[in-house]
Amino acid sequence: MINLPKRVFIQEVVLRDGLQNEKQIVSTDEKLKLVDRLIACGLRQIEITSFVNPHLVPQMADAEDLCNRLKQREGITFSALILSEKGLNRAMRCGMSHVGVYVSASETHSRRNSNRSVAEALAEARRLIRKARHAGMNVRAGVMNAFGCAYEGKVPVGKVTEISEALFDTEPDEICLADTSGLGNPLQIKEVLNRVRPVTDDIPLALHLHNTRGLGLANVFSALEEGIFSFDTSLGGLGGCPFIEGATGNIATEDTVSMLHSMGVESGIDLSALIGVSLDFEKVLGRIFPSLISHLYARLKADEP
Amino acid sequence: MINLPKRVFIQEVVLRDGLQNEKQIVSTDEKLKLVDRLIACGLRQIEITSFVNPHLVPQMADAEDLCNRLKQREGITFSALILSEKGLNRAMRCGMSHVGVYVSASETHSRRNSNRSVAEALAEARRLIRKARHAGMNVRAGVMNAFGCAYEGKVPVGKVTEISEALFDTEPDEICLADTSGLGNPLQIKEVLNRVRPVTDDIPLALHLHNTRGLGLANVFSALEEGIFSFDTSLGGLGGCPFIEGATGNIATEDTVSMLHSMGVESGIDLSALIGVSLDFEKVLGRIFPSLISHLYARLKADEP
Repeated sequence: MINLPKRVFIQEVVLRDGLQNEKQIVSTDEKLKLVDRLIACGLRQIEITSFVNPHLVPQMADAEDLCNRLKQREGITFSALILSEKGLNRAMRCGMSHVGVYVSASETHSRRNSNRSVAEALAEARRLIRKARHAGMNVRAGVMNAFGCAYEGKVPVGKVTEISEALFDTEPDEICLADTSGLGNPLQIKEVLNRVRPVTDDIPLALHLHNTRGLGLANVFSALEEGIFSFDTSLGGLGGCPFIEGATGNIATEDTVSMLHSMGVESGIDLSALIGVSLDFEKVLGRIFPSLISHLYARLKADEP
Repeated sequence: MINLPKRVFIQEVVLRDGLQNEKQIVSTDEKLKLVDRLIACGLRQIEITSFVNPHLVPQMADAEDLCNRLKQREGITFSALILSEKGLNRAMRCGMSHVGVYVSASETHSRRNSNRSVAEALAEARRLIRKARHAGMNVRAGVMNAFGCAYEGKVPVGKVTEISEALFDTEPDEICLADTSGLGNPLQIKEVLNRVRPVTDDIPLALHLHNTRGLGLANVFSALEEGIFSFDTSLGGLGGCPFIEGATGNIATEDTVSMLHSMGVESGIDLSALIGVSLDFEKVLGRIFPSLISHLYARLKADEP
């Protein structure tokens, strides 16, 4: 019979990927309150912000303020996404211990996202990763659009492997394959993982998946079958890349945790508490989130006598 | 590498499971129009109605009228769900060639759905299947709540195996395992299939899945890995059991087809035509359906210059 990992590690990305596309600016106070509640649910890795151009992503304009006001806690990791040296320097000045540095596998997306070709972006990422590691930071190196691109369609696996190998060479702590456009399917997940693994040796692989076409949890399951035990998820299923049309909806933390627990895979997360946080955060943003399990629970609870 | 089936057969259940829970009554004319459009998209198996108590399920009150007005077409199968001898007799009088007869694996659900214990319902189902087969009908025998019950929680696999074996004994043309409460997970799909297959020999197994907790397509993928190539789906993701609270949302035909095609699995269905049918049928019911791919396409199309 099939063996899934016994334990999965979830990085909660609602504060970065989840919010970056939201028009309504969430205050730093609200963000800090959310962080406290997520930690109380058992989340241990939280992507807190990105150090990017505040004019392009106003939701992340409070990056410094937010990071400076974060209470450091035993066993809790806060990470930030950076896209440039300027961003890395800002993260360093805030004393961030963990950063994520990503390169897109698609030329069109790379140019739109970073104004650089893939080769240029990769060279710059390698430089930034080395600089961050030299400064003692923990670095996740990632490949965006590793499973397809909203602009270009298919992305050759060879391209993903090539970038992964070049990132591996900089000795990051983790390599992440991101389905930025939400185009991955569960068969492809296996194919890409089986091609990337040989070039990334024993560096842990993480997946960042979207549910754009309803395949998010099918992709998680496929990856679990391949032994992957590290996933990015977003509270309520919030999220999406602001530079890619229609690429909405990260996989929802609560739906993912619900699937994991139903299969006997541990996450260390209190599902029912997390659902409470998601439903409360809906009130902050004033809209219904895509997560299914939260609303199912809310409905069943409302029907109780 | 993994081998998925090259071709999958989809039974479209929107006219039965999809509509049975909808309060707004869809006219027989609208239903016939929908049938024509579904067939034009390439669907070949359509569950058209159920012969049940019209007072309990008013949406199915036009069963006779609908069946009598159906144009029979080469290569197209219309089937009806029956729950009792009265229902079977009605289906026979309408000249239906295909019927589905289901038994619940949960005592509580069985009593609520049919006012019978599982053992009584199974004995009655076996009698009805034999009668239908004797009359020359093609019969699908099914197990409801095969992956869990909203009332009872876990359903022992042994119970599902036992019922499947008793159904197998009546020589149906197909056996269907239904996740009526939407509680199945992809690991369990494999476990149940691997237990049921030995007792159902070479009779084809079909799956009827719901997306209640967002696991619908993960469950389809898991079943594909096990070689299953027959699935029930519902246009737009409409559906749910009227007798089970919260068990809403069959897997959406268009989302399923989109996943299959992206993995190179054929369905014979024209996805973009089907999305058009789904979006048009939203106007008939006056609400947005749960399908993701339809709205993604609609949004991308709206953004075209």
